[in-house]
Amino acid sequence: MERIYLDSNATTVVDPLVKQAMDPFFCQMYGNPNSLHRFGTETHPAMSIALDRMYSAVGAADEDDIIINGCATEGNNTVIKGAFLDAMAQGKPCHIITTQIEHPSILHTCQYLEKEQGVEVTYLPVNAEGLVTLESLKEHLVRGKTTLVSVMWANNETGLINPVKELAEYTKSQGVLFHTDAVQAFGKLPVNLQEVPADYVTFSAHKFHGPIGVGALYIRAAAPSTPLLHGGEQMGRKRAGTVNVPFMVGMGLAMELAAQHIEYYNTEVRRLRDKLEDAILKLSDTMIIGDRKNRTPNTILASFKGIEGEAFLWDLNKNGVAASTGSACSSEELEADATFQAMDMDNNLSHTGVRFSLSRFTTEEEIDKAIEVINRTVERLRSISSTYSS
Amino acid sequence: MERIYLDSNATTVVDPLVKQAMDPFFCQMYGNPNSLHRFGTETHPAMSIALDRMYSAVGAADEDDIIINGCATEGNNTVIKGAFLDAMAQGKPCHIITTQIEHPSILHTCQYLEKEQGVEVTYLPVNAEGLVTLESLKEHLVRGKTTLVSVMWANNETGLINPVKELAEYTKSQGVLFHTDAVQAFGKLPVNLQEVPADYVTFSAHKFHGPIGVGALYIRAAAPSTPLLHGGEQMGRKRAGTVNVPFMVGMGLAMELAAQHIEYYNTEVRRLRDKLEDAILKLSDTMIIGDRKNRTPNTILASFKGIEGEAFLWDLNKNGVAASTGSACSSEELEADATFQAMDMDNNLSHTGVRFSLSRFTTEEEIDKAIEVINRTVERLRSISSTYSS
Repeated sequence: MERIYLDSNATTVVDPLVKQAMDPFFCQMYGNPNSLHRFGTETHPAMSIALDRMYSAVGAADEDDIIINGCATEGNNTVIKGAFLDAMAQGKPCHIITTQIEHPSILHTCQYLEKEQGVEVTYLPVNAEGLVTLESLKEHLVRGKTTLVSVMWANNETGLINPVKELAEYTKSQGVLFHTDAVQAFGKLPVNLQEVPADYVTFSAHKFHGPIGVGALYIRAAAPSTPLLHGGEQMGRKRAGTVNVPFMVGMGLAMELAAQHIEYYNTEVRRLRDKLEDAILKLSDTMIIGDRKNRTPNTILASFKGIEGEAFLWDLNKNGVAASTGSACSSEELEADATFQAMDMDNNLSHTGVRFSLSRFTTEEEIDKAIEVINRTVERLRSISSTYSS
Repeated sequence: MERIYLDSNATTVVDPLVKQAMDPFFCQMYGNPNSLHRFGTETHPAMSIALDRMYSAVGAADEDDIIINGCATEGNNTVIKGAFLDAMAQGKPCHIITTQIEHPSILHTCQYLEKEQGVEVTYLPVNAEGLVTLESLKEHLVRGKTTLVSVMWANNETGLINPVKELAEYTKSQGVLFHTDAVQAFGKLPVNLQEVPADYVTFSAHKFHGPIGVGALYIRAAAPSTPLLHGGEQMGRKRAGTVNVPFMVGMGLAMELAAQHIEYYNTEVRRLRDKLEDAILKLSDTMIIGDRKNRTPNTILASFKGIEGEAFLWDLNKNGVAASTGSACSSEELEADATFQAMDMDNNLSHTGVRFSLSRFTTEEEIDKAIEVINRTVERLRSISSTYSS
């Protein structure tokens, strides 16, 4: 059976070009880049090219740092715990502002610091459009008290895009550090760190056709940084650990390719997403979360009245279509609940949320086939639903 | 020019079998293992096999945890900072005992906690044989006060093997948690965690022909654990972050192969190491650090009077032989200094230390060739040395 992958917000296929670029660094050029001999130094040109590609792809300045790490979860933990540890070391209280709709690597980290370490955390809600607002930030940020503001660029479940530029500008104007988790934004939206004055930005390679197991943390030149991983002198002493050369090389190429495909994403991928979205909306009693103009161009979070999300996924899966009920990182709870609640959706409706997320590898044939499968599945499940009557 | 790699304590070539096992998980079976659909679930059998291989390779019990992470540096930081954060959360003081000869991922982490966070750290010295002793531990461990003891199993620079079994047994008898960094031990020595009652043990795949960028942290069932990476529910909530399936699969196979080659390591690799060592000792004014019977069977740290370590390496490198002055993680300082000092070697001698480390891929032809190159290089450098006169 042909299989259709519509879960690209969870992870993406590695681009064969990326795989090819990584291959020589396992069994041929396998040296530790910190070694002085040729096995070590021969890895340097490829690492240097990879880093250049990353700087270009996000508009980083020469004096900024891009730290290669193990994943976005590590990047997010580094920033949040770094702020806490810095405050601790200076004997100052720590106040972190984040939002109710962050990825678990922010939310659970903040909850840990709040419950176990006595940190004050403010979780900003979203408005009726599902967005974090400047007004809400202004209400809670206290100059001289707030340590860090962390707001995700685009949401993993809804695809909704927060106004990070104005949030970052306001935060910086108050002398407070600003972090954004750009994991779901990069590769789908233009990400230019000359324009958005964030101090810290988190990236994850496997969301844009690089491998799982490597991420990057952008640190603006003036921003303080406390390593989460102390040890060797790698990454300018900002992140210890032997550098994973193949994955750094792969991530660099994947970032360059992602930046090159932004236009394609916002025309062709968007067109296919809209086609799928229109087809879903043609079905009765369905709704899509958030204005499509304000979403990443590949994402649909849809709600089908009378149909339970996991049952729906199971049927789709049996018919070769892979989708998701939400974040793959959180099986027990639907994180979009905060969004659903803010948008005044009733609980029954919210638990039927199913996410379809495309990539630049998604084809029109796949979307046409997926539409067929979705139509059939909705019809079948509603015909046996005890809660649905049209 | 043929190249001879004698720096396997820094990193090792990925076994082609390991590479082959990882390959399908980049572009074919690329799903996020947490996803409910087939792309996710089809990765589970290979992950399960990988974990089984790891449990078998180290003698872990079913109820223990083996947490897949990004590197040994992450594992070491998790244990050390976890002990600190736990103590903090409970409002207790934190006293960590470690040694002067640990890897930077332990030493620098402890130094950070000591200087910035007010943690009390005791750094045990080594004795005249370069070893950490039970007597020294007994002198400093205070029941009811000491939080954690962390002693490396085998040293990365000298290969010297610490008595971790008795250190762990004593520490546990005092009701204190015990951690060992087994990065340089596993694959070279039998590592059986049924016999050594450590609570936490750190492993790194790239030291035994797995890829760089994946490690494992063993956590005994009864031991507390505070994640260094909070977030998703991966690894039983003990380490968040999307699981790097190919590298987990690769590490599992690499561990199995390493365990299978322990006998080979302790016969054939040891024979080749001894051959090289004997040849070095035939040269005048050379010495080898530590009794060979008490070293990992692949490691030699040699000192050549009148020859500066980096100059020696450079010459070796030009002649196709890759060796090291010490840890690749620390370019500025020779960590073995503590060992050299304890062994009463003068400073001039200690700065000439050069490490040769073999692997199961090292051949007799390579060793013969390396001996030739070393002989020639020592002769040449001493002939132009201003400090050497035989």
